[in-house]
Amino acid sequence: MSDLPREFALIARHFRPLAGPAALDLTDDAAILAPPPGKELVLTVDAMVAGVHFLPADPPDLIARKLLRVNLSDLAAKSAAPLGYLLTVSAPPDTTEDWFAAFAAGLAEDQRAFGITLLGGDTTATPGPLALSLTAIGTVDTGHAVLRRGAAPGHGIWVTGTIGDAALGLAVLQDSLADPSGFLAQRYHLPAPRLGLRLFGIAAAAMDISDGLIQDLAHLCRAGNVAAEICSALVPLSAPARAAGPAWLERCLTGGDDYELLLAIPPSSEPALQAEAKRANLPITKIGRFLSDPPTVTVHGPNNTPMKISKPGWSHF
Amino acid sequence: MSDLPREFALIARHFRPLAGPAALDLTDDAAILAPPPGKELVLTVDAMVAGVHFLPADPPDLIARKLLRVNLSDLAAKSAAPLGYLLTVSAPPDTTEDWFAAFAAGLAEDQRAFGITLLGGDTTATPGPLALSLTAIGTVDTGHAVLRRGAAPGHGIWVTGTIGDAALGLAVLQDSLADPSGFLAQRYHLPAPRLGLRLFGIAAAAMDISDGLIQDLAHLCRAGNVAAEICSALVPLSAPARAAGPAWLERCLTGGDDYELLLAIPPSSEPALQAEAKRANLPITKIGRFLSDPPTVTVHGPNNTPMKISKPGWSHF
Repeated sequence: MSDLPREFALIARHFRPLAGPAALDLTDDAAILAPPPGKELVLTVDAMVAGVHFLPADPPDLIARKLLRVNLSDLAAKSAAPLGYLLTVSAPPDTTEDWFAAFAAGLAEDQRAFGITLLGGDTTATPGPLALSLTAIGTVDTGHAVLRRGAAPGHGIWVTGTIGDAALGLAVLQDSLADPSGFLAQRYHLPAPRLGLRLFGIAAAAMDISDGLIQDLAHLCRAGNVAAEICSALVPLSAPARAAGPAWLERCLTGGDDYELLLAIPPSSEPALQAEAKRANLPITKIGRFLSDPPTVTVHGPNNTPMKISKPGWSHF
Repeated sequence: MSDLPREFALIARHFRPLAGPAALDLTDDAAILAPPPGKELVLTVDAMVAGVHFLPADPPDLIARKLLRVNLSDLAAKSAAPLGYLLTVSAPPDTTEDWFAAFAAGLAEDQRAFGITLLGGDTTATPGPLALSLTAIGTVDTGHAVLRRGAAPGHGIWVTGTIGDAALGLAVLQDSLADPSGFLAQRYHLPAPRLGLRLFGIAAAAMDISDGLIQDLAHLCRAGNVAAEICSALVPLSAPARAAGPAWLERCLTGGDDYELLLAIPPSSEPALQAEAKRANLPITKIGRFLSDPPTVTVHGPNNTPMKISKPGWSHF
């Protein structure tokens, strides 16, 4: 059976080397696993489509790593440790061997970086743009996952890292903004999932910021049935984002692809959060607080007047 | 926050009612679960794209049910019981509310039929054809999953149900074959995953037939490092498939979308297999045997001469 059909030859050549023991060498149609004693599994899935979530000409290794990382970011928001992933690739029929090789090399690089393996997948053709999905599986101590629900009036609103870089990076790649250092485009292409923060017992609620700070904060408000107020002047911006100027502030607050964490922190937990962030060497910033009002997000603008936000974030429809 | 962005309003309206407790009401980005004591999880994923895996005008409820069932079929091949699933839907921007409602209604119907719930998902836009992926999760007694590897010389080759109906059904939908009863088209649109057979201790290896009997049998051969010989006259055909005539035989043996099970059965296990099939009320047929030769599939044709097969099954590339 030397003439393996090309679909399966592609899988054997590019994807089988990525598989771990639970994947049964990808010679099977399923993976088998159980969480270690005392742990639960956390499962999350995201789809990415060329022309929507990434630019069709983006380097295939970066597409692969972004696909993996946006899902690892969801695990990070649950305070889960990544274990493995399942993948679907629906590719145009003229997709080259080199493209698959580079895509798999990107996965291999991040598998090493995050200590995970491929558990299974499906490779199909499509007459349309490249369409990808990835199901990430993590583990968390039983009962210790941090959820979106749980924000309460009086809790502080905290974020990791800096906000808006990726949205500005997309503007850079679309030639509407300069980026002399390349920092903004890098933040668009390669998110850094904020894994490793031990949030259980510290954060009352958490999520990652994928569709825009204000829209995602509204999700946290709805899940906890609270309102939120933030000060735009407190939102941490990188030096390149500050250099873009105040005309880009709203884009930073509403643009997608940050993959920073958004946390609800009771005042009594602030010292523990700061100690944990220091241990993980991750900058964190308090940007506002939750209030006992119906779920709305108020943004106090640069002159301490409420900012009118035309579109709070990304919606696919 | 009455003006939920449309993406999230769609999810709340159509998909949230499908979610089980582990899905955290789909208000979160992840599901949390652990297998019951003594069980392992089985995970499998398949992608489906309009124009490749189904016809763009197919009824949305049937598309949804087929997407679910092709994955449940992979669980059936492991002798696993289905638990739940994660879903991605990448839909053209003009996809209507009615389409989403019918798609979700199809999922709801099969959730009831198979006793499962939605665990999580992602809904995105695409400039191309509808692209779907589904990750199915099942449970199996620890160590009792049946794998693709395990076929040995002397084992019988068995299949459930009838072979080739779905491939002929596609020909019917493409107007190249008549189907007075509608049976063949129904078999294409709505596979019946062969769940419920207790195969551990009976089958030495198993897989579902999704890409064509001969090609999938070749996978089983490679996984077990054995050859296979089958007799075309033994392959069970439905009455409508027999009525199509001998010109369609090769299509039956190589066409995809059967979702029947293909089993390697040691001779000593044949009585147990037959008892189990009777208990599950599922027809099973022995079509050949495995041999100690390098992995190849030989098909003895109608006149007991080897059949020359031009294309053993479906390959996406």
